[in-house]
Amino acid sequence: MHVLVTGAAGMIGKKLVGRLVKDAALNGKSIDRLTLTDVAAATAPAGSSCKVEAAISDLSAPGEAAKVVALRPDVIFHLAGVVSGEAETDFEKGYRVNLDGTRELFQAIRKTGDGYRPKLVFTSSIAVFGAPFPDMIPDDYHLTPLTSYGTQKAIGEILLADHSRRGFLDGVGLRLPTICVRPGKPNKAASGFFSGIIREPLAGETAVLPVAETVRHTHASPRSAVGFLIHAAGLTRDQLGPRINLSMPGVSCTVAEQLAALKRVAGEKVASRIRRETDPLVERIVAGWPERFEARRAQALGFRAETSFEEIIRIHIEDELQGRIAA
Amino acid sequence: MHVLVTGAAGMIGKKLVGRLVKDAALNGKSIDRLTLTDVAAATAPAGSSCKVEAAISDLSAPGEAAKVVALRPDVIFHLAGVVSGEAETDFEKGYRVNLDGTRELFQAIRKTGDGYRPKLVFTSSIAVFGAPFPDMIPDDYHLTPLTSYGTQKAIGEILLADHSRRGFLDGVGLRLPTICVRPGKPNKAASGFFSGIIREPLAGETAVLPVAETVRHTHASPRSAVGFLIHAAGLTRDQLGPRINLSMPGVSCTVAEQLAALKRVAGEKVASRIRRETDPLVERIVAGWPERFEARRAQALGFRAETSFEEIIRIHIEDELQGRIAA
Repeated sequence: MHVLVTGAAGMIGKKLVGRLVKDAALNGKSIDRLTLTDVAAATAPAGSSCKVEAAISDLSAPGEAAKVVALRPDVIFHLAGVVSGEAETDFEKGYRVNLDGTRELFQAIRKTGDGYRPKLVFTSSIAVFGAPFPDMIPDDYHLTPLTSYGTQKAIGEILLADHSRRGFLDGVGLRLPTICVRPGKPNKAASGFFSGIIREPLAGETAVLPVAETVRHTHASPRSAVGFLIHAAGLTRDQLGPRINLSMPGVSCTVAEQLAALKRVAGEKVASRIRRETDPLVERIVAGWPERFEARRAQALGFRAETSFEEIIRIHIEDELQGRIAA
Repeated sequence: MHVLVTGAAGMIGKKLVGRLVKDAALNGKSIDRLTLTDVAAATAPAGSSCKVEAAISDLSAPGEAAKVVALRPDVIFHLAGVVSGEAETDFEKGYRVNLDGTRELFQAIRKTGDGYRPKLVFTSSIAVFGAPFPDMIPDDYHLTPLTSYGTQKAIGEILLADHSRRGFLDGVGLRLPTICVRPGKPNKAASGFFSGIIREPLAGETAVLPVAETVRHTHASPRSAVGFLIHAAGLTRDQLGPRINLSMPGVSCTVAEQLAALKRVAGEKVASRIRRETDPLVERIVAGWPERFEARRAQALGFRAETSFEEIIRIHIEDELQGRIAA
């Protein structure tokens, strides 16, 4: 089996590639080839038992999508994209990368015209939903994004569904909740602080909290996100039915509950490393995001996330900090 | 005031232009200039008191959208598009005209960069909704189109909302129910028969019914459609709030109820001019369409349609047949 990962140099991309190399199989078939693309250099992990090739590629550039599609991957994990904060500040770049890049990929697949029909797992986002909301967002809730990022993801979902319906590809879209705790440096995602307020204190540094502690949000760990992607690749069209875009499960909690969990797991001193400093842009973006959703279909289809925010913190300490907390 | 109508040579376009010329005003301001574009020649109606210019223009062609935007219309009625049947049989044409044409128009407006911010009334469709449905579709129901046409309209809605939110234009999208009775020749819309089974018998001809009489659907007259467009142009952003795409009201009835209304209005002989001949493509497309919806927000905002299918038939006889029925 040949697997393509776009956006392979990103945080989720790297973890997914690591898992694929470790498993050396997907959907019960061994992986003999792995192609990684990104606008930045993606590195092939050490110890791979299969052929791994990494290429710098911008899918929105003419001919680039056709080049990767010419390799005829059996499964495509399409993770490439610019994050919410950047899509909001750079309108043209957001549309070019998140909309045109995705459309070019789908079009290159359609244009093969030889019956090629890959499984395509698309990473969407809860940002496709926009306020005002009911308390709990049902699976069949309206798409009314309030950011350009959410707009681009919503369009990607609808395009994916139409290309699947027409038989050009076999798609499944996953609305990821905020992935937390995101390791490494802060990125330009407006949701970045949800991770920062856990990651930095655990590393002995002070984190900025740009919103009120009453803000409620839904989270899943990077480990869960990779699990969602792998699980999605194994779902059949019959299992999915006509609605192939799914809200993923997660832990819904307030910022105050996040900080209380941090205190329980790591102690008072760690949990005190927070500086409150309101950021109006982040506040405005986050205010338009959903707080919690049912994810009934995803759960019925076997997708699983954590059940508490403490569990999310412990996974971060285990996967990223080798069990060590900066006291 | 300068008004632009795209798709001005189409059925609704022509009727809208007729109404604008007759009213000689919009939103209480007199119209001094009217620009009409279409891929086919749009004709300026006789007796206009304002300057009327018609141009053949394909908005999806390079530079065309910028040309019409350079004229700085104050209000744009964006009706241009290919219909559902054609968008389904010609995948590339549907995406080019309905998606790229719309995006080019929005982009040309955004790129003016001089504070130009027209009112833009976008004609969407109930085809943005796809089965399975609840009995009555609420205003905040999921967008899950089951046709390429519905996909393109849904994308247009979401793009319109993002461009409005970012302040590039002042948009409002109207999900039109099926417009019935459509005058003139049948077009390639899969919904065409809903009109045909009324129009042809009234004109002394036999119409083909390609679906079962139990099929339920929602209709509004061409006169109502024009009324929706004019009313929408007068709504403010405050009235609309963040959700600027609205399901329009209409008359929900079955094909059997349509035929019974025809019999009541025009007699048994007229109503018997129906030949039943199943068309699987039409059946499949129509099966994915919504049957009825709440349209609560539209009604609260003052949009009005007919209240019975008999009224819809009488409007057709009045507006198109000068009161005469072929006995």
